[in-house]
Amino acid sequence: MTQRSTLKIRRVGIDTWRENVVYMHRDCPVVRAAGFQALSKVEVHANGQVILAVLNVVSDERIVSACELGVSEDAFRRLGVEDGHSASIAHAEPARSIGALHRKISGERLGKDELASIIRDIADARYSKIELAAFVVATNQYELDREEVVHLTEAMIDVGRRLNWQREVGHGLVVDKHCIGGIPGNRTSMLVVPIVAAHGMLCPKTSSRAITSPAGTADTMEVLAQVELPFERMVQIVRDTRACLAWGGTADLSPADDILISVERPLSIDSPGQMVASILSKKIAAGSTHLVLDIPVGPSAKVRSMAEAQRLKKLFEYVAKHLRLQLDVVLSDGRQPIGHGIGPVLEARDVMQVLQGDPAAPQDLRQKALRLAGRMIEFDPDVRGGEGFQIARDILDSGRALAQMNAIIDAQGRRADVPAAGALQAEILALEDGVVVAMDNLRIARIARLAGAPQVPAAGLDLLKRLGDSVVKGDPLYRIHAQYEADLQFARTHAEKDCGYRLGRAEQLPHEFASGVLFMM
Amino acid sequence: MTQRSTLKIRRVGIDTWRENVVYMHRDCPVVRAAGFQALSKVEVHANGQVILAVLNVVSDERIVSACELGVSEDAFRRLGVEDGHSASIAHAEPARSIGALHRKISGERLGKDELASIIRDIADARYSKIELAAFVVATNQYELDREEVVHLTEAMIDVGRRLNWQREVGHGLVVDKHCIGGIPGNRTSMLVVPIVAAHGMLCPKTSSRAITSPAGTADTMEVLAQVELPFERMVQIVRDTRACLAWGGTADLSPADDILISVERPLSIDSPGQMVASILSKKIAAGSTHLVLDIPVGPSAKVRSMAEAQRLKKLFEYVAKHLRLQLDVVLSDGRQPIGHGIGPVLEARDVMQVLQGDPAAPQDLRQKALRLAGRMIEFDPDVRGGEGFQIARDILDSGRALAQMNAIIDAQGRRADVPAAGALQAEILALEDGVVVAMDNLRIARIARLAGAPQVPAAGLDLLKRLGDSVVKGDPLYRIHAQYEADLQFARTHAEKDCGYRLGRAEQLPHEFASGVLFMM
Repeated sequence: MTQRSTLKIRRVGIDTWRENVVYMHRDCPVVRAAGFQALSKVEVHANGQVILAVLNVVSDERIVSACELGVSEDAFRRLGVEDGHSASIAHAEPARSIGALHRKISGERLGKDELASIIRDIADARYSKIELAAFVVATNQYELDREEVVHLTEAMIDVGRRLNWQREVGHGLVVDKHCIGGIPGNRTSMLVVPIVAAHGMLCPKTSSRAITSPAGTADTMEVLAQVELPFERMVQIVRDTRACLAWGGTADLSPADDILISVERPLSIDSPGQMVASILSKKIAAGSTHLVLDIPVGPSAKVRSMAEAQRLKKLFEYVAKHLRLQLDVVLSDGRQPIGHGIGPVLEARDVMQVLQGDPAAPQDLRQKALRLAGRMIEFDPDVRGGEGFQIARDILDSGRALAQMNAIIDAQGRRADVPAAGALQAEILALEDGVVVAMDNLRIARIARLAGAPQVPAAGLDLLKRLGDSVVKGDPLYRIHAQYEADLQFARTHAEKDCGYRLGRAEQLPHEFASGVLFMM
Repeated sequence: MTQRSTLKIRRVGIDTWRENVVYMHRDCPVVRAAGFQALSKVEVHANGQVILAVLNVVSDERIVSACELGVSEDAFRRLGVEDGHSASIAHAEPARSIGALHRKISGERLGKDELASIIRDIADARYSKIELAAFVVATNQYELDREEVVHLTEAMIDVGRRLNWQREVGHGLVVDKHCIGGIPGNRTSMLVVPIVAAHGMLCPKTSSRAITSPAGTADTMEVLAQVELPFERMVQIVRDTRACLAWGGTADLSPADDILISVERPLSIDSPGQMVASILSKKIAAGSTHLVLDIPVGPSAKVRSMAEAQRLKKLFEYVAKHLRLQLDVVLSDGRQPIGHGIGPVLEARDVMQVLQGDPAAPQDLRQKALRLAGRMIEFDPDVRGGEGFQIARDILDSGRALAQMNAIIDAQGRRADVPAAGALQAEILALEDGVVVAMDNLRIARIARLAGAPQVPAAGLDLLKRLGDSVVKGDPLYRIHAQYEADLQFARTHAEKDCGYRLGRAEQLPHEFASGVLFMM
């Protein structure tokens, strides 16, 4: 409405987390004349660029004066102009895909072009947070059919950068491993990657930092080595060692997914369709050709029943097949944490113990890593089905995996001093005699976070008892490590309310544990 | 997580439109130690108050320095403390009703207590914009059943202020009239209110300003009189004149609804359940006991078919019955604008012409207002069914409605100078001979807004032809009025692309028009 008017751009140092926000003064003649309201969507034109942004109305001259156009850090980066550059604004037409968004909100099925146009607009930051939330909720559970998930995944790949390892390293078969998450201590990547790289496979692994968990692979690897690697450096490391264990945050592999996660996380929404599109788009964009996917199943895991796990597995397989990704899905035991340590430093300790063949090493972590690595090794056309596990075990037991890990650590940049676990400690004790019949992953993760993990890498839990273990009253179940007294007290108070362990009689144990049989895989 | 730390509050003059936002510097030790991220939800404790807010991370000392806690205007008002007051922050627990929100997102039916707890959290500003959007989308079409709409409406009433006219004015029967909107020029309230007040009924009408339309009743009444009235003044006016035509924005009648609208508007979502709860909660909170509700039906109205209108009518009736509101729903002709003028000044002119019995007055506006007023008058136990229309007509034709309107205008505060329609004009001409067979309400409203309405009250359209009129090529269809040359050109350019009228042959006219029979009511 009304003419565009010229304003002077002022960079406003506010991080709006991937949303373009502009700040204009209440007394700005443009605001008054055009009838802009708080949260109006506006088009900003500057230097031949056009971006969409949400308007915040300001009454403080220290932020913007009447003839300035304040732009948030995100918007400033997208415009790519200097402070003080002239710009004009106008009422924004809705993003082109808003019609498709409304059809999805009404429960309609969307076609390939419609999903592509939504994802393009999201990647171009044309959606407000409100519109993103609407898309995430509208595509939640039961709303996306398999075809739609294929189209969504393709669209997410198309708007991002795509790595080509054939070109970079001259290697066509690129293996990867991913877990859908939810199990504390489940640090298998740091074992699997050196094992399969020692077998000669290319495994350039990028991982995330923890979002809601006490540690991500990137956080844990960072205890040992640098993980924030410029792309060219990462390529060189992969050329030299066939592998890496880097943080994937800078690679811009799936920019639309990164933006969607900014609303999925606060909403705690992780629907099957979105999960599949998010994971597979990132893996394919990262250049992976073969993927082993770990889906833990358990009463406090992300996937709570075998029926649900099977449905999710089939959806992953369907989409992977259409996108020509070789996929091997493993349903694993998700009824308790993996390993002893929870938190970056404690998990790094577990990993190094397994690699070093330390008798104190957690056997469950070793076993699970060998099984996953074995499945990846079987992607090698020269390996017979069923032989992967033994090859992996030989590589680990011979010390070749440790040597490979050290090569990766040195290539990425070894940390001079590996920190020790937090010096402040508290033990959480059994309140009665019994057998551990259940462990609550969510509760245990929460207590580790209260102790400070992952922001404080040395904080976390060291588990002393596991499912099936007999305890007598007063036995320590786990030890809390913290760096700050207040964190220790906070975690202890929560643990004393509900420590996350349930004690009972041996008969209450799930059958597989009572009989010593491994649950799945 | 981690201890609360003390910071100094700094009011940041940013209007975040009902979302609590706090601004903290990237280098603030609290941000670093507690691991707060952009868009984290935090609890702010100050002066015994606790509010939830979304965190924006700032890198500019002019906005906040490292030990300050910047708070947006909304958050500052809610905290009710001085600039410089000490405050502490902590990671926020999710709002108590977030579990219920997730159940709704998964498609479950919510009970009374769950909906009440969501609405309470929304009214207390414990939801972020993202969570509000999730609620709005999750409760969209097909998702809320009738019982849920009853509970949602009740919950919205319970968290707001509720007027009691029996106590204020000693009158038990309070009549009101509402239209669900979407029809330009449909300014019947300004006729209906003086007519029913002249009949002796209590009709304290509060209206909104235009959100997406070229004029709301409050905008139009403001051409003639003050509409922003403090509550006590409004009560006195109602005591004196039995009526008012005030802006309802300050009354705090349905605070949760006001907050929900802040996301429904940018999403253009107006689902039946939300519409019913929004309208009925506001009417009941305003103390109305009897309501006539106008649902216009037409191809470019909000409700596009009779079947849809009937479903919506039944939902309104069901909820009203459970909340003991006497409701009379009128399905009206929504296939074209009502009256000649579109825009505050032009619509006020139409209203006054009808009240003054001016032969130039738009007959459709007069007729519709009389029918609606007649239905309201029949709420009077002393009036026989079918007599309302005649009583209304007698009141209008005798000049008593005009006298009543003048009394209301004087009581609210008469505008010294009623502005004339915008002096800049352009006529939009028929491009061929034919009969007007369709009019597009949305397009016509949009052109009126481009001309400047409602921000420029004198801007808008004056319609010269209506459905069924014969035109010859070159006849003016309507006149655009504007105050600024750029607005006039902008509106004209859009009108020349598509003027909103469709010309055709008389046989293409809907039957009721061809035969001169009024469509509905």
